Amino acid sequence: MLPSKKLHSLEGLFHPKSVAIVGASSREPETGWAARLLDFGYSGHLYPVNPRAAEISGLKVYPTVRDIPGPVDYAIFNIPARFAPRAMEDCVAKGVKTVHLFTAGFSETGKEEAKKLEAQVITIAKDGDVRIIGPNCMGIYYPAAGLTFSPLFSQEPGNVSFVSQTGAGAMRFVPLANDRGIYFSKVISYGNAMNLDAPDFLDYLASDKETEIIACYIEGVKDGRRFLEAVRKCLMTKPVIILKAGLTESGADAAASHTASLAGAESVWDAFFKQTGAIPVNSLEEITDVILTLLRMPYPKGRRVGIMGRGGGLGVIATDICEWAGLKVPPFLPETIRQLEEVIPEAGSGVRNPVEGPGGINGTADFYAKALKMVDADPQIDFILIHIGVDIYGGHQPDLLEQLMKVAEVLASTARTLTKPMAVVLYAGEYLETVAAVFEARKRLLKAGIPVYPTIEAATKAVSLLIRYYESAEKR
Amino acid sequence: MLPSKKLHSLEGLFHPKSVAIVGASSREPETGWAARLLDFGYSGHLYPVNPRAAEISGLKVYPTVRDIPGPVDYAIFNIPARFAPRAMEDCVAKGVKTVHLFTAGFSETGKEEAKKLEAQVITIAKDGDVRIIGPNCMGIYYPAAGLTFSPLFSQEPGNVSFVSQTGAGAMRFVPLANDRGIYFSKVISYGNAMNLDAPDFLDYLASDKETEIIACYIEGVKDGRRFLEAVRKCLMTKPVIILKAGLTESGADAAASHTASLAGAESVWDAFFKQTGAIPVNSLEEITDVILTLLRMPYPKGRRVGIMGRGGGLGVIATDICEWAGLKVPPFLPETIRQLEEVIPEAGSGVRNPVEGPGGINGTADFYAKALKMVDADPQIDFILIHIGVDIYGGHQPDLLEQLMKVAEVLASTARTLTKPMAVVLYAGEYLETVAAVFEARKRLLKAGIPVYPTIEAATKAVSLLIRYYESAEKR
Repeated sequence: MLPSKKLHSLEGLFHPKSVAIVGASSREPETGWAARLLDFGYSGHLYPVNPRAAEISGLKVYPTVRDIPGPVDYAIFNIPARFAPRAMEDCVAKGVKTVHLFTAGFSETGKEEAKKLEAQVITIAKDGDVRIIGPNCMGIYYPAAGLTFSPLFSQEPGNVSFVSQTGAGAMRFVPLANDRGIYFSKVISYGNAMNLDAPDFLDYLASDKETEIIACYIEGVKDGRRFLEAVRKCLMTKPVIILKAGLTESGADAAASHTASLAGAESVWDAFFKQTGAIPVNSLEEITDVILTLLRMPYPKGRRVGIMGRGGGLGVIATDICEWAGLKVPPFLPETIRQLEEVIPEAGSGVRNPVEGPGGINGTADFYAKALKMVDADPQIDFILIHIGVDIYGGHQPDLLEQLMKVAEVLASTARTLTKPMAVVLYAGEYLETVAAVFEARKRLLKAGIPVYPTIEAATKAVSLLIRYYESAEKR
Repeated sequence: MLPSKKLHSLEGLFHPKSVAIVGASSREPETGWAARLLDFGYSGHLYPVNPRAAEISGLKVYPTVRDIPGPVDYAIFNIPARFAPRAMEDCVAKGVKTVHLFTAGFSETGKEEAKKLEAQVITIAKDGDVRIIGPNCMGIYYPAAGLTFSPLFSQEPGNVSFVSQTGAGAMRFVPLANDRGIYFSKVISYGNAMNLDAPDFLDYLASDKETEIIACYIEGVKDGRRFLEAVRKCLMTKPVIILKAGLTESGADAAASHTASLAGAESVWDAFFKQTGAIPVNSLEEITDVILTLLRMPYPKGRRVGIMGRGGGLGVIATDICEWAGLKVPPFLPETIRQLEEVIPEAGSGVRNPVEGPGGINGTADFYAKALKMVDADPQIDFILIHIGVDIYGGHQPDLLEQLMKVAEVLASTARTLTKPMAVVLYAGEYLETVAAVFEARKRLLKAGIPVYPTIEAATKAVSLLIRYYESAEKR
């Protein structure tokens, strides 16, 4: 199949040779769009546009886009909505290929004049063959080309792409994901979707070799059929995670007020997820958990989990949570129980699944060094869930970090020898000391390819969705 | 009604004039039970018992309980299970009133000889009129009398009591709660419930003037009718929160292995919660959230929430979460919207509910100073939910703590002037800097009587349970 013309044009969108900042800030040049791109390593031509400034961030400023000497691939509008039609006319005249309308104040306000203004801008762009990202959005983060809308995002490129109708959500989500070892190929915050919409971006990402996992935050879809087809196309080669916001009635009202989206009934979306095999999630945190699981956890052979951790009652709670998430917690084989009893000298410690680790942090590394392999060898078990309540040591264990890193080392080195996948839950709790220790241990475990979650609920939901995804993919 | 004899005997249980530590540790005297009670300020007579030591933690040691000169109200058994019958005989001979069996290795192991040993110890105790807490548990934390089973628990007494079949769970739960401004009257970890069971403790707490809120972690109940009656008695004067663990089939198996409990079917417990009005929760974190809400949030007049926070998409997500938790998110009155539009200059910011705060942390304090009163005045709204994604500033905002404390000050001072309850969600995120800032801001808000939650899910579930509790209490 030859690449379509549309695919071509979006390819160019991520590789602009020149960018114009329309409404470049002369008051806060150090935090403006121009400075942001410069600092992030964008190496193409950068043209600030502002009729009342001569130089911004060391760059020559042009009064309008028409005055820029070379060609302009991409323009970012950082101007009030009322100036947008005129600036769009300039872009048409200049032959700009894509405009990112950072500018808000269009149809999402619900006001008639704003809707008219939006229609006017669309008409000018359409007639002049200019593509629009937005309005009311953050645009593109593509670290490989030095494009970003936040200085806080990692400059390291990765294999995940995120198509998002929320800008602030993307601002929260990317650092959240970065800090759990998830890096991005492309993030597109596209707001009101005046012109380019989710199906356009998904259609592009479906065949994008740099993208192995796709996540979406969607409020509404203008053309349901196109969206369905684009998601299906993606799912032929890679997983698609969708946070469909505005599922409830009030949520749909909020979405209308946010991006002028028609949200659609919850039942329709339920059917959509069943039909397509796309992975449904309800929060940005859940997107992160699912991506982490897709990246770090091999497909378990089934839903039977072996639970390991401190505390009998906590094991019972964990068991209920696993079952509620659609997992199974069968008893270990008698031979496994016999072996576990040998390494657990403490009376009152469960060994039948869940298996209970030692009371203090001090014996924990030793316990996992011995017991992990026993649970791994049990044919009743498909994967292992380890929960470590670091919060229990509450900043009162002076060598907590050292002890916890010992545990992390054991988990990291033992994991390599196991035949089954493993997930680790580290409860950070309410002390800065335990939080710091958890962050360090998590880094070590992520480096060893082990997924780490903040709660048992988060881990079990993500693993359950992973299994559901692979099961559905097998049927396709 | 005259206090029953049983009530009397439990009263004594919390006020022992003398405590014997049977099996006081001579190897680790600085972390043993005797040292723990001394350090925590227990001021009664403390008698270490150990046939192979002369002095522990500066205290004279006795070979057996019989050798102790004065009377003994309370004994803690820190000895292997096989020595328990003999030591219990000593306690009977000495006239000890209550024995806390820290010792495990009884019926929870599922082994026949262990079950026989348990039966033997029960018979000796019953015949000798000795009450038992346990076995396989942590015993009593009662800061007012200097009793504790962990040096990490706060010495400050409070008005919450916790009846727990999990010891390690209680070890996690108390510091978790302490750090969110929750303090305890009595915590009882009672394990296998060989003799004293949940109904005994609940019956006592129902009329305990020091206890205003009761929380329970229950795995199984031996006498369902007694438990129901005890919970009902408590609910006549105070809320009861119950984490019923082992609701699923595998969870019930795990409970049997943990505390030899018969867990009972999920449907039975559903009916129990509906009938009684007890508050059902699924995790220790949820117990904390509900207690916090009971302590800090006045009963809202209804379920209609006004949502305030940064980010349109995050507002849509929050709206869905509220609706799923059984809350309502109605649009504000036109007059409220008009007022909000005046204080929100940013185009693209929602004002119809949810209302969107400013993009940066810097304008946030100002925004709440003005907008909170407007939302509070709207008759469509019963309470206010504020969500602040501190994680978005990801350790890259140098004055983050200062700015966030400004926000906290404004919320604290404005809350006093509001007519409606308020809940605050602070997302700490994955950076140590933001976590530290959140901990500080939370302290300030808790001091001002404002409940603070880690996620919107946690806040909405807790508020929804609060409303359900009050509605059910009105019917009783």
